[in-house]
Amino acid sequence: MPTSRLEAFSDGVIAIIITIMVLEFEMPEGADWHSLQALTPVFLTYVLSFMMLAIYWNNHHHLMHVTRSVGGGVLWANMHLLFWLSLVPFGTAWLGGNHSAALPAAVYGVLLLMAAVAYWVLVHAILRHEGPASKLQKAVGRDIKGKLSIALYAVAVVLAFVNQWISDALYVTVAFMWLVPDRRIERRIEAERT
Amino acid sequence: MPTSRLEAFSDGVIAIIITIMVLEFEMPEGADWHSLQALTPVFLTYVLSFMMLAIYWNNHHHLMHVTRSVGGGVLWANMHLLFWLSLVPFGTAWLGGNHSAALPAAVYGVLLLMAAVAYWVLVHAILRHEGPASKLQKAVGRDIKGKLSIALYAVAVVLAFVNQWISDALYVTVAFMWLVPDRRIERRIEAERT
Amino acid sequence: MPTSRLEAFSDGVIAIIITIMVLEFEMPEGADWHSLQALTPVFLTYVLSFMMLAIYWNNHHHLMHVTRSVGGGVLWANMHLLFWLSLVPFGTAWLGGNHSAALPAAVYGVLLLMAAVAYWVLVHAILRHEGPASKLQKAVGRDIKGKLSIALYAVAVVLAFVNQWISDALYVTVAFMWLVPDRRIERRIEAERT
Amino acid sequence: MPTSRLEAFSDGVIAIIITIMVLEFEMPEGADWHSLQALTPVFLTYVLSFMMLAIYWNNHHHLMHVTRSVGGGVLWANMHLLFWLSLVPFGTAWLGGNHSAALPAAVYGVLLLMAAVAYWVLVHAILRHEGPASKLQKAVGRDIKGKLSIALYAVAVVLAFVNQWISDALYVTVAFMWLVPDRRIERRIEAERT
Repeated sequence: MPTSRLEAFSDGVIAIIITIMVLEFEMPEGADWHSLQALTPVFLTYVLSFMMLAIYWNNHHHLMHVTRSVGGGVLWANMHLLFWLSLVPFGTAWLGGNHSAALPAAVYGVLLLMAAVAYWVLVHAILRHEGPASKLQKAVGRDIKGKLSIALYAVAVVLAFVNQWISDALYVTVAFMWLVPDRRIERRIEAERT
Repeated sequence: MPTSRLEAFSDGVIAIIITIMVLEFEMPEGADWHSLQALTPVFLTYVLSFMMLAIYWNNHHHLMHVTRSVGGGVLWANMHLLFWLSLVPFGTAWLGGNHSAALPAAVYGVLLLMAAVAYWVLVHAILRHEGPASKLQKAVGRDIKGKLSIALYAVAVVLAFVNQWISDALYVTVAFMWLVPDRRIERRIEAERT
Repeated sequence: MPTSRLEAFSDGVIAIIITIMVLEFEMPEGADWHSLQALTPVFLTYVLSFMMLAIYWNNHHHLMHVTRSVGGGVLWANMHLLFWLSLVPFGTAWLGGNHSAALPAAVYGVLLLMAAVAYWVLVHAILRHEGPASKLQKAVGRDIKGKLSIALYAVAVVLAFVNQWISDALYVTVAFMWLVPDRRIERRIEAERT
Repeated sequence: MPTSRLEAFSDGVIAIIITIMVLEFEMPEGADWHSLQALTPVFLTYVLSFMMLAIYWNNHHHLMHVTRSVGGGVLWANMHLLFWLSLVPFGTAWLGGNHSAALPAAVYGVLLLMAAVAYWVLVHAILRHEGPASKLQKAVGRDIKGKLSIALYAVAVVLAFVNQWISDALYVTVAFMWLVPDRRIERRIEAERT
């Protein structure tokens, strides 16, 4: 299977996830400032999830760019990633509606953790397919950012039960850490060209 | 009509179905463990349906790959398949919310049964178009897996009224049976290349 | 603008409309036969709307196939068509939930009528662009089926206030009339090839 | 990154936004004229938002057409635009359901204002990438329509607290101002061809 089909399907799914999240916004009951203010945590969680999904779209795109072809293992690793991402709208809505409780913050973290693990699994499934001398292997290198994200999410899930604001802060931290697109792969692509 | 358009449309519809299923998750009323636990059957049904739809996407993709062109009959056979798949989010939500009742398990089975029948009809509509000496004919062979799925679904629908856990077990069985992508077609494609 | 972009956008919108309709299904309160039976009118309306949208997708595809390029007028005529189609899920849900009332049947008819008119406008906007000697002009001919649909929808809207079952029967009639894809254009395309 | 991927993703997101808006329509409780009439403000807001999103799709398409390649800055500027557009269904539903209140009209205006600013930022991010001698620079020129839109939205947000009908009138005005696709870029493209 050429990577283009998998990329188009993944792009489609991520585009839908990022867009339907807005449907989880519960319509405010009134039309006054008080009703609007009550949406603040929902809005902030929405911003965070939007950023997260945009980052995944971007990194996934870079990843596919250095992948030549796709076998069954890679295909299912990709579906596994999409599965966890597909639950982000649920996690966002639950966290947004219950920002002062521990469990929704932990569940949101579990979703991000599982998505990060699924991404790691996907990268390694592709690496097995492409071989150790591949462009991707050189680009990924030691993958410090990927491993650090997984560690931070795991810590955030546990700390949610101490104080959920710590978890929220950690999620924001990881998002900003990734906002810069994966320069490693970009640099490698440019190096290949010259 | 070239197969590419039909494939793009089908891919789009399946991507949307697989993604909007999350909107059927009813938001838990509380933010405690009890509320989360109550989601377990919804979650498990979600996992099963996600796998089913991913399998359909995958097999549909392989099917289109060995199809050269598409006439009116194939087009409507494909729409018929998408129709039954489009009802999966409804079946998932009803089953997830009523996992200890017989009827939702049976209805879920009817949707899967009709989708499997529709797939079988689609394959044969394409075969009529492509001819008995086609790549697809060789790839499909006696189509034991397809026929077995239809039989198992039919049995599961009936047995739901005896004990709905039997049906659930059968649905999971069929899913795992298909998780391996259609090697027959894959093998045939590879054989053609060499 | 090349037609491919407009076609991809229209395909995407129709794929989303056809798929999100399922979200308008209200989850039955119980899990028994009575609850399921109560869904029958919703289901039948769903089937009809699914067929209608599939027909639009199919005909729209054929239409774009004989169109060479797209100007501003055609673009907005297309958006106008998508606008009315985008309201079909609402009309479907209202009709499905109130099948024994006149007004929802009439409103459903108004949506179909406006979509049919919008399609007619779109065809003529393209014809103005392509010229009277174009492939499309020859294919469309006197467009009896298109004009008849508009007339039947208009009649159905009025007759809904006499008896809504007459309207429902007329909607089904038009759907079956179009189920056969637009042979005129197909024949023309084939004639061009030979 | 080639512009084609960014365009496909943006097209997909806008197609989904424009289509899921219908899900925010609250089903009328009755099936009589009174229930239907109560939907009038929702319908009119829907029409306005549909037009706005169609205009963005159209202009975005023209913009991408004169853009050769896309770096990280442009990519995030584009995501920023999609973020504000993704909130339009929420703003539409809140305004439609509360058309006689000031705040929903102001919030709707803030969303349109932020989207217009995000579009301006996107255009300038591309310009920095393409250079002052680019086709886009010539096409955009002094961008009077873009700046005027931003000014009118800002005024409308403030005036919503005086009388929300003034804001509504201003939103409609801007929509009609843009209904004509961006002739400047179109003219430039045609000039390039000859």
